[in-house]
Amino acid sequence: MKIANTRPHVVIVGAGFGGLAAAKRLARRDVDVTIVDRRNHHVFQPLLYQVATAALSPADIAGPIRSIFSGSDNIRVVLDELTGVDTQSNRVRLASGKSLQYDWLILATGARHSYFGNDQWAPHAPGLKSIEDALAIRRNVLLALERAETETDEQRRKALLTFVIIGGGPTGVEMAGAVAELARRSVSRDFRSITPRCSRVILVEAGDRILPSFPETLSKMAEQSLEKLGVEVRRKTPVNDIGRGYLESAEELIVAETIVWAAGVQASPAAQWLCAYHDKRGRVIVGVDLRVPGHRNIFVIGDTANVAGTDGAPLPGVAPVAKQQGRYAADFILGRRDHPFSYRDFGNLATIGRSKAVIDMGDLKLSGFIAWLLWCVAHVWFLIGFRSRLAVTINWLWNYVTYQRSARLITGEISAASAPHAQPLERKCA
Amino acid sequence: MKIANTRPHVVIVGAGFGGLAAAKRLARRDVDVTIVDRRNHHVFQPLLYQVATAALSPADIAGPIRSIFSGSDNIRVVLDELTGVDTQSNRVRLASGKSLQYDWLILATGARHSYFGNDQWAPHAPGLKSIEDALAIRRNVLLALERAETETDEQRRKALLTFVIIGGGPTGVEMAGAVAELARRSVSRDFRSITPRCSRVILVEAGDRILPSFPETLSKMAEQSLEKLGVEVRRKTPVNDIGRGYLESAEELIVAETIVWAAGVQASPAAQWLCAYHDKRGRVIVGVDLRVPGHRNIFVIGDTANVAGTDGAPLPGVAPVAKQQGRYAADFILGRRDHPFSYRDFGNLATIGRSKAVIDMGDLKLSGFIAWLLWCVAHVWFLIGFRSRLAVTINWLWNYVTYQRSARLITGEISAASAPHAQPLERKCA
Repeated sequence: MKIANTRPHVVIVGAGFGGLAAAKRLARRDVDVTIVDRRNHHVFQPLLYQVATAALSPADIAGPIRSIFSGSDNIRVVLDELTGVDTQSNRVRLASGKSLQYDWLILATGARHSYFGNDQWAPHAPGLKSIEDALAIRRNVLLALERAETETDEQRRKALLTFVIIGGGPTGVEMAGAVAELARRSVSRDFRSITPRCSRVILVEAGDRILPSFPETLSKMAEQSLEKLGVEVRRKTPVNDIGRGYLESAEELIVAETIVWAAGVQASPAAQWLCAYHDKRGRVIVGVDLRVPGHRNIFVIGDTANVAGTDGAPLPGVAPVAKQQGRYAADFILGRRDHPFSYRDFGNLATIGRSKAVIDMGDLKLSGFIAWLLWCVAHVWFLIGFRSRLAVTINWLWNYVTYQRSARLITGEISAASAPHAQPLERKCA
Repeated sequence: MKIANTRPHVVIVGAGFGGLAAAKRLARRDVDVTIVDRRNHHVFQPLLYQVATAALSPADIAGPIRSIFSGSDNIRVVLDELTGVDTQSNRVRLASGKSLQYDWLILATGARHSYFGNDQWAPHAPGLKSIEDALAIRRNVLLALERAETETDEQRRKALLTFVIIGGGPTGVEMAGAVAELARRSVSRDFRSITPRCSRVILVEAGDRILPSFPETLSKMAEQSLEKLGVEVRRKTPVNDIGRGYLESAEELIVAETIVWAAGVQASPAAQWLCAYHDKRGRVIVGVDLRVPGHRNIFVIGDTANVAGTDGAPLPGVAPVAKQQGRYAADFILGRRDHPFSYRDFGNLATIGRSKAVIDMGDLKLSGFIAWLLWCVAHVWFLIGFRSRLAVTINWLWNYVTYQRSARLITGEISAASAPHAQPLERKCA
């Protein structure tokens, strides 16, 4: 792409929380910015599980990246995918065959769920990282309920009405709570042969408690709340094997039509692009200023970076970390920062379901309804764009009052009969 | 399925406007009703083109069929697909292998777009009948714009920015107007190298005027409004051939990345299932009471039926016809009707775009802003469920005020990088 003038050209790869925060800081500054993302939209990932459970529509939590920057003439958005970085000539290679020269490069390419080397599990236990993932899970859950309604074989019916979520982190906990509400409550009035009791929701966690990043007391409260919702919580239960319609742990074999993976993530291959040192999860080990050792003009931020926190452990892969790192990188480029990056932790939130959440903000530890309200407000607040805030608020109020899930659509089914019909034959069979 | 008692069992196949109207009439009456549809949701088809042009989300105009009848215990909803009818034993066969016994059968299986025997055109010029169709078209249109933004080859860029809609009926006209607004106005601020002038939208009609079902004066007005929006209207232009990225008529070859088919429909194969007489479009010729000659307990309604209007011509395939026929069939089953079915025509509406529509209600012929307001009110009014009405109203107000399209998401792309990453190699390349 030709750059109009000689101002420094900043290429940002990935329009997640980190890349977006960096771009916003650089908007209308004396630099040229090109954002490269393989999707045309930014996704507000913390609410993705609500799309997967039919509470929200994709457009409520995702919006076109270029609309966010329509007012910033120094920012260009390119729908493309990074395939490599040529650090000698300062160019990034793109899937389209094009390449982009950069003066500064910010890699914010995020992470994908990881099956810890068991990628064969992927088709049987999809993860939740993109809108497509969410719609696929929504389809599985709703389709299982539909089939159960008419299934006469008891065993098969049980399998259809068993939903397993693997991983007791915030995503897994929120997913389990939402699936329980959907499968056990929201839909019960609509079905004739499914009662709330028919459905089983099982949360499987390898460690000895759920929400390990939270204080123990809150973990307990979260577990109790989940059990109130009818979720069976299995702690200390590492998964040995996953196949089509079943999950195997040391103790038991669970037969379930719907299995969701929320157990672990793997950083995008930035380390390979840069031949940089990385940790086991593939996160690039960056310097205190988030630059890659040996590459003075390349930053790696967000889920793709391994940055030690005050306690020495790597910072968690959450939105606030990515945002603060994005702003830091932008400020560094603008010459406003020289001191090392330091993460300001505002605390931890997770919701379990209707009127239930846990909040850990240092001295302030909350659970229950107040925590849930705070969680709602915080998430609406951080949504990008007034429209999304409005849409999510209205949908939440609607769901809260009616107990309904408003986006219960099974789409993407390619049915034989959806192909155009051939000309029917003239009457000849009678 | 076992029926609890000996009340007559009515099987309704298809939950479009006709089937839904029949079911609503039979709700909480002394009959057992089973609705069979191959999708779990009812789609408000008149607004499908707004999903295709990113103005609305699928969930705004579609809702689960079983939610509509959650309060009616005599109605069962089955997600399945009809494969045949055994009129001897009064059973319908379903794709799942199950079968249903009926005392009364209402076939409301609708129509699909027809390529007049040129089914090879289908992949190059998709039609608009289902949510999936709409999302596919939305994806094509948005992707074409994204690619055009970075395309350097002038010819290729032209092709990407040329949008052709085939068929000058209401769907084609509304589609053309909406695409013009999306491609020429809504997105212009977001792109750096696309200006409204770059995009071409062409509406191709074989007949000598668009909206042939409307009075000539309104056809003219509609054409003028479309041209104001920048749509090139080609009348008397039958299509000779369609291929990947091009369309050929007698006069010219149009190179266009995006081609949408809105030219004709073909009834679902009810005539084959029943071995019944049908017209060229596959519509079953039914009696004055909508029953199939020779089958005293089978009704065919909506787009699948050929019913002569007062002028002798078959009634058009529009929602009001299907609804009135559905109610008639239900009333007939309930023993409340004996006189023949007669269609009460309340008039014809079509919108061209922002603030522009045409209305033909006998003596009342309207066009322009007032007509557009009436069109909006009518469509919100006929939407099923308060939530959809609220969602559509809010989205329309939003789009009207901001000129934005709120659902501009490109989804469904299976990108290589969306697969889970393999464990990255330890550093070895340097």
